[in-house]
Amino acid sequence: MSKTFERRAKQRDALVQAAERAMAARGLANLRTRDLAQEIGVANGAVYNLVADVDELVLMVGSRTLARLDAALSEAEGAGPPAPAKTLVRIAIAYCDFAAANLELWRALFEHRMAPDKPLPDWAVSDQMHLFRHIHQPLAVLFPKRPADEISVTARSLFSAVHGMVALGLEQKLIAVPLSALRKEIAAMVQAMVTGLVANSDRDA
Amino acid sequence: MSKTFERRAKQRDALVQAAERAMAARGLANLRTRDLAQEIGVANGAVYNLVADVDELVLMVGSRTLARLDAALSEAEGAGPPAPAKTLVRIAIAYCDFAAANLELWRALFEHRMAPDKPLPDWAVSDQMHLFRHIHQPLAVLFPKRPADEISVTARSLFSAVHGMVALGLEQKLIAVPLSALRKEIAAMVQAMVTGLVANSDRDA
Repeated sequence: MSKTFERRAKQRDALVQAAERAMAARGLANLRTRDLAQEIGVANGAVYNLVADVDELVLMVGSRTLARLDAALSEAEGAGPPAPAKTLVRIAIAYCDFAAANLELWRALFEHRMAPDKPLPDWAVSDQMHLFRHIHQPLAVLFPKRPADEISVTARSLFSAVHGMVALGLEQKLIAVPLSALRKEIAAMVQAMVTGLVANSDRDA
Repeated sequence: MSKTFERRAKQRDALVQAAERAMAARGLANLRTRDLAQEIGVANGAVYNLVADVDELVLMVGSRTLARLDAALSEAEGAGPPAPAKTLVRIAIAYCDFAAANLELWRALFEHRMAPDKPLPDWAVSDQMHLFRHIHQPLAVLFPKRPADEISVTARSLFSAVHGMVALGLEQKLIAVPLSALRKEIAAMVQAMVTGLVANSDRDA
């Protein structure tokens, strides 16, 4: 590896970490590449020798956030009995706790929009899709006869529903809930969704 | 009513309607009072003789959006059998359809944040709370013995869950779903939540 390549890789790491700190402290909307350039000691324009554009930088921070979320969900999976309904409840609570503890970085995952006509790069899509296995696996145990694409649809709905409870609960918009009450409500609703999905599937069978 | 008062009331209406058109077309983030002043034919600064600030203007637009949403939910309530589970499904679908048909104005309800330390005015809180009766009433029929404050918590969770499905479904972030598939999924999940809530409540009793 050439010295130049090595130096640029180090600078890129420093840039992503500076962006992560800035976003965690002040939110995505207040991210300024000028501040980051100053912090890592490069000229303003040099930032664009390290990343293609701000979208790429924000996605690289997002990738780190998703990796930490993935670890938190894996830990929740193993933290109790492997019964699928209980696992889904633990994962939902872990998602809520992660969002509360990483509020701005978690918000940035959803607030960030690519420039119009610019698709999300494949690696970012695959980072996101990889996380769904945490929901997909317990659902596949609950519904062993159901095809994988149907399970994926249910996994997506279950995630969106829990995400909605977490997002509105933590935003304290329309709806203001203390975290302990929010966790309890999420547990009750996930349990209800699972009970209902199983009951309605038996009825349909 | 004095001429001046009358003229200002008319100008205020024109301002709110211009803001609504601008937000519907270009989103909350691109709202510029300068453009609105020009459109209704007043000087830039005169806007602040009509409304206290941009927050108030956005809330007045939000109030109109909520009133239309309220009408859409009322219509959905009456559009089928009064069975509570079916009513809740119809309301959820109507919420989804309203969001899809009024995307930017609906987004603005959730994207708008008051300046820090500035509380939401009472009338805005009451506009929002009033809408929850659409969910509260069918739940009260399903759980006749449950106290109203517990029903309110469940209503809030059910709303947040449906909101999450609609928001992520329509944002086409992480999750891209055609509207017909989204409506079907929302119906299935609301039915599952209701079935599960009733089953788990019987079990607890």
